[in-house]
Amino acid sequence: MSDSKNSDKAFPGFSCPMPILNHDTVQLAHGSGGKLSAELLDKLFLPRFGNDTLNRLEDQAVLEMPEGRLAFTTDSFVVDPIFFPGGNIGDLAINGTVNDLAMGGAKPLYLSVGFILEEGLPLEMLHAILLSMEEAAWGAGVKIVTGDTKVVPRGSCDKIFINTSGIGVVPDGINLSASGLKVDDRIILSGTIADHGMAVMTSREGLSFQADIESDTAALNSLVEDMLLVSRDIRAMRDPTRGGLAATLNEFARSSARGIVLEQDKVPVNRKVQGACEILGIDPLTVANEGKLVAVVPASVADDVVDTMRHHPLGREAVVIGKVVKDHPGVVALKTGLGVSQILDMPVGEQLPRIC
Amino acid sequence: MSDSKNSDKAFPGFSCPMPILNHDTVQLAHGSGGKLSAELLDKLFLPRFGNDTLNRLEDQAVLEMPEGRLAFTTDSFVVDPIFFPGGNIGDLAINGTVNDLAMGGAKPLYLSVGFILEEGLPLEMLHAILLSMEEAAWGAGVKIVTGDTKVVPRGSCDKIFINTSGIGVVPDGINLSASGLKVDDRIILSGTIADHGMAVMTSREGLSFQADIESDTAALNSLVEDMLLVSRDIRAMRDPTRGGLAATLNEFARSSARGIVLEQDKVPVNRKVQGACEILGIDPLTVANEGKLVAVVPASVADDVVDTMRHHPLGREAVVIGKVVKDHPGVVALKTGLGVSQILDMPVGEQLPRIC
Repeated sequence: MSDSKNSDKAFPGFSCPMPILNHDTVQLAHGSGGKLSAELLDKLFLPRFGNDTLNRLEDQAVLEMPEGRLAFTTDSFVVDPIFFPGGNIGDLAINGTVNDLAMGGAKPLYLSVGFILEEGLPLEMLHAILLSMEEAAWGAGVKIVTGDTKVVPRGSCDKIFINTSGIGVVPDGINLSASGLKVDDRIILSGTIADHGMAVMTSREGLSFQADIESDTAALNSLVEDMLLVSRDIRAMRDPTRGGLAATLNEFARSSARGIVLEQDKVPVNRKVQGACEILGIDPLTVANEGKLVAVVPASVADDVVDTMRHHPLGREAVVIGKVVKDHPGVVALKTGLGVSQILDMPVGEQLPRIC
Repeated sequence: MSDSKNSDKAFPGFSCPMPILNHDTVQLAHGSGGKLSAELLDKLFLPRFGNDTLNRLEDQAVLEMPEGRLAFTTDSFVVDPIFFPGGNIGDLAINGTVNDLAMGGAKPLYLSVGFILEEGLPLEMLHAILLSMEEAAWGAGVKIVTGDTKVVPRGSCDKIFINTSGIGVVPDGINLSASGLKVDDRIILSGTIADHGMAVMTSREGLSFQADIESDTAALNSLVEDMLLVSRDIRAMRDPTRGGLAATLNEFARSSARGIVLEQDKVPVNRKVQGACEILGIDPLTVANEGKLVAVVPASVADDVVDTMRHHPLGREAVVIGKVVKDHPGVVALKTGLGVSQILDMPVGEQLPRIC
């Protein structure tokens, strides 16, 4: 186990009782494919994730798929601390992969879960993580249909890493792509930025304002569904995770070879997040989000899309934050409150390692 | 980086030149989603894995799927050392997931790859791993269509972990399941056991006979394809990885609630592997394989299936090793050379952590 100062501070007291197992902590044999592996599966994993497909315990899930193209994505989660205000590595892993599917316009259907566990991890901690994964999967309407668990000796990984891969189906007529941006399109942001990154950062560093800043981790698929009902002409969507809004807008500009103008004053930032960013000298535009999306839409439907988003709990602060322009192709220009324009570059360094 | 003694001993000298990057080792910023992430992607990952889908660099791959049910699987790889005689963590990760799909009768199509990299990992080592992943994917006829890279600070993981998830399509009429075993079915093994586990084990421990024992890592999908052409009535297939043949046969017995009799004398073991097992006091029946399969087939087609397997390079030593019986449901009986029967139990402990 690492010595990260606050990893257990936010350990939530779930009410579901901890099943009785032969050990209190993860043993190497829990990853052996033998008896202890079977115990972990039967007592911890299946009670949380069980469904007809998973329960077959084959090495692969066989699934009936609805009509449409298939969407497929993967994400590994290494966040530190594993419990932080507003979430933990478990719901983060479910929501993150659900969101990667939703950003392509797909309806998320099935997830795989791969655990890498450090020998000695308290099984009660694993159980708490599984409970929030169960809840997040239920909330997003996805099933966990296949999985894998590896255990590494003490010191070979830091507590727990989780990979979630996901598949979904893209309805006919939906063709989202970052390359499809057109001049005069509007850029919509679904809410405040930098909440997740600053929640993890302040929690990790044990800063006094940590309790006030909560991660925004959330599954965005139902918000996306509402948006696509308003317009199937939405060009592209992305959730600004690592690298924050700055990275996402730069990716959009480069993929489409269009210019983007971002109006800094329009970007909502929680007051406490803004304060923490200032104290730490971090630009909120470069900080990770886990429950926000950026959408590029034709100007003609922008107001309708924003209006619909504001009626959804995860889009109440949705706002147009900029537009696509024909000048400076591939470059994002930031218009500050003083009317000055400067280049908003792709973030270079890594201010916040292990943020997701 | 860990201090495992021999991790670099088998580092292969691939002839493809190492691209020039701004750093020689993995930096935290390579996982930031920013400029260094983009460099890693452009110079190392895309030249190896690039295809029309992956090159779009969206957060999800959108895929046209052929008719049939979908197969979906996931596996994380944490093998130590990362290079071992006969392979490395890269081809192991590709072959392992291809095999998990093939064991369900699926034609493997698409893979995702998720890397967790330790800060300081030499990029040349990563490059060598990517080269063998490329080769393995090419050999198995699968495309890598989506991926993710995380970097953790030095000491938070041991060099590199890889998750591969995969999707494939199960042709109509193929319904493999461990629950479908019938009395008098034959158990077929595709070749020698324990090669992979003993190659990794002896390589890790720096034992003198290590150079003689090579991992059997291989993609089994073309062998499976040949077998299914002979008979679509094959009941079940599985690759005996962690826990070895003992775990796989126990899983078959339990899932089907049938008894299984295994004839120990029929199970092929390489002489040097047998010797290493004896010296180390390890039962080869419990050691991991990465290029072998166990199939359960109706007695009427067993000879034809074995004959076809023997014409495939990965099935030359295919042999019937036992059968399904109506006695002792859920239990595997081992018939030794002396005619004695004993119970072959599910392995309990973990003799070989980080074997895959």
